[in-house]
Amino acid sequence: MADPWEECLEFAVQIARKAGAVVCAALKEDVSVMLKSSPADLVTATDQKVEEMIISLIKEKYPSHSFIGEESVAAGKGSTLTDCPTWIIDPIDGTTNFVHRFPFVAISIGFAVNKQVEFGVVYSCVEDKMYTGRRGKGSFCNGQTLQVSGQKDITKSMIITELGSNRNPEVVKIVISNMERLLCIPIHGIRAVGTAAVNMCLVATGGADAYYEMGIHCWDMAAASIIVTEAGGVVMDAKGGPFDLMSCRVIAASTKEIGERIAKELQIIAVPRDDGKRI
Amino acid sequence: MADPWEECLEFAVQIARKAGAVVCAALKEDVSVMLKSSPADLVTATDQKVEEMIISLIKEKYPSHSFIGEESVAAGKGSTLTDCPTWIIDPIDGTTNFVHRFPFVAISIGFAVNKQVEFGVVYSCVEDKMYTGRRGKGSFCNGQTLQVSGQKDITKSMIITELGSNRNPEVVKIVISNMERLLCIPIHGIRAVGTAAVNMCLVATGGADAYYEMGIHCWDMAAASIIVTEAGGVVMDAKGGPFDLMSCRVIAASTKEIGERIAKELQIIAVPRDDGKRI
Repeated sequence: MADPWEECLEFAVQIARKAGAVVCAALKEDVSVMLKSSPADLVTATDQKVEEMIISLIKEKYPSHSFIGEESVAAGKGSTLTDCPTWIIDPIDGTTNFVHRFPFVAISIGFAVNKQVEFGVVYSCVEDKMYTGRRGKGSFCNGQTLQVSGQKDITKSMIITELGSNRNPEVVKIVISNMERLLCIPIHGIRAVGTAAVNMCLVATGGADAYYEMGIHCWDMAAASIIVTEAGGVVMDAKGGPFDLMSCRVIAASTKEIGERIAKELQIIAVPRDDGKRI
Repeated sequence: MADPWEECLEFAVQIARKAGAVVCAALKEDVSVMLKSSPADLVTATDQKVEEMIISLIKEKYPSHSFIGEESVAAGKGSTLTDCPTWIIDPIDGTTNFVHRFPFVAISIGFAVNKQVEFGVVYSCVEDKMYTGRRGKGSFCNGQTLQVSGQKDITKSMIITELGSNRNPEVVKIVISNMERLLCIPIHGIRAVGTAAVNMCLVATGGADAYYEMGIHCWDMAAASIIVTEAGGVVMDAKGGPFDLMSCRVIAASTKEIGERIAKELQIIAVPRDDGKRI
């Protein structure tokens, strides 16, 4: 049977590459920055321009499809995931990196049908790395098959996470103490490159054994979640239960064992859900 | 007047590239790991092999020069910096990354005369980025001139640091609380890619506004220190005083203002010096 979404995936790759060219060009110009929820939550005119470009290109080709995009939601549009074919878009994952020209910024395009992610495209444009994952068909970076490390022993693991953009001292305290507890298990190390999508793709490559974060959004995780699972990894909730795309929290791991061991250490941060449902 | 060390710099670039090819080839094979000072302080046979290769190539060409190399010191050789022309070598900066295939590992080759760093070469081999700096002549990445961001306002800064490999709970507590205090100034964010040399080079590119760490070594900093200063940045002690290559601690910053502001927040960790002098 022909793959019903193959054409959409190919189109997503094309669009991600086009968007990446705009983002990389913008990195050579002056970036003017606006604040969102905190002094560390940044947005730029490029985020908005690139999202409009992506959505209008897709709408033209697939007028019946739905969209959840970071900037559209910021501008007041809803982010309820329905059963419709839905494109879940982060035009620049790693906006703070973009502002600073720290060389990891990604265009993230996920695609869900019946609330299940069918494929994901993450284009880390400065590195020129195109990550893709298609449900049941594996995941790839620039055409090379990806496979997670398979590591099960937390004391031999390398974990990625982020300090995040919330500067509420209570929240910072939990973020920091979660890192401290993991470090002292001990583990080999913690890394942070500043984009959730690339962090998850690094788990898919086997370059890290896990990534976790709370306070991110469905557009940060949708595309990369399928890239991780198709590389043989797992995604789960920060509490260790099933992954919930709208919950704003994730553990992506090379194995269930590593994921659950991390969940055991994490103190949960009460972050509002993307769909507005009660926590 | 001709540059007396130009030939040495050119030779260092050649050797770094050769060493990088060995490191990248080793990344495709099984890596067997040994522990050094802690469960997170790793070393591999490749570290030792690459350092031997680098030193024997240089010795052949410059038999009168001195050497300080990470693995030679680990094997019991001294690390006293004299006035002699001295090559200061880290065969794999980012050994934990290397073990995990996290894609940032660098060959770091610094060169000092009269205890002053004359040039530095940092080759981030997976990315194929060759960073060089020559005193008085600027610094470069793959031939492109580097310039720091020039940022003076800490609240608009992106800072790189590392959790490090020390798992002593007291030390971890200070490392973590230093990050917490900086985050809450607030700053834009903290990143960690797992190699001191690449972290410093990222400051030189303008991609981050500062990097600090305590508990690193002269071979981690020597080459990158000149790359930072030749890109217009500053290096200083973690307390804010003059940079001391053998002190095992550094702040590399885009400006004096940012560097001193960081120094004001840092609680100092008592790390032994590389030259064995009393702290």
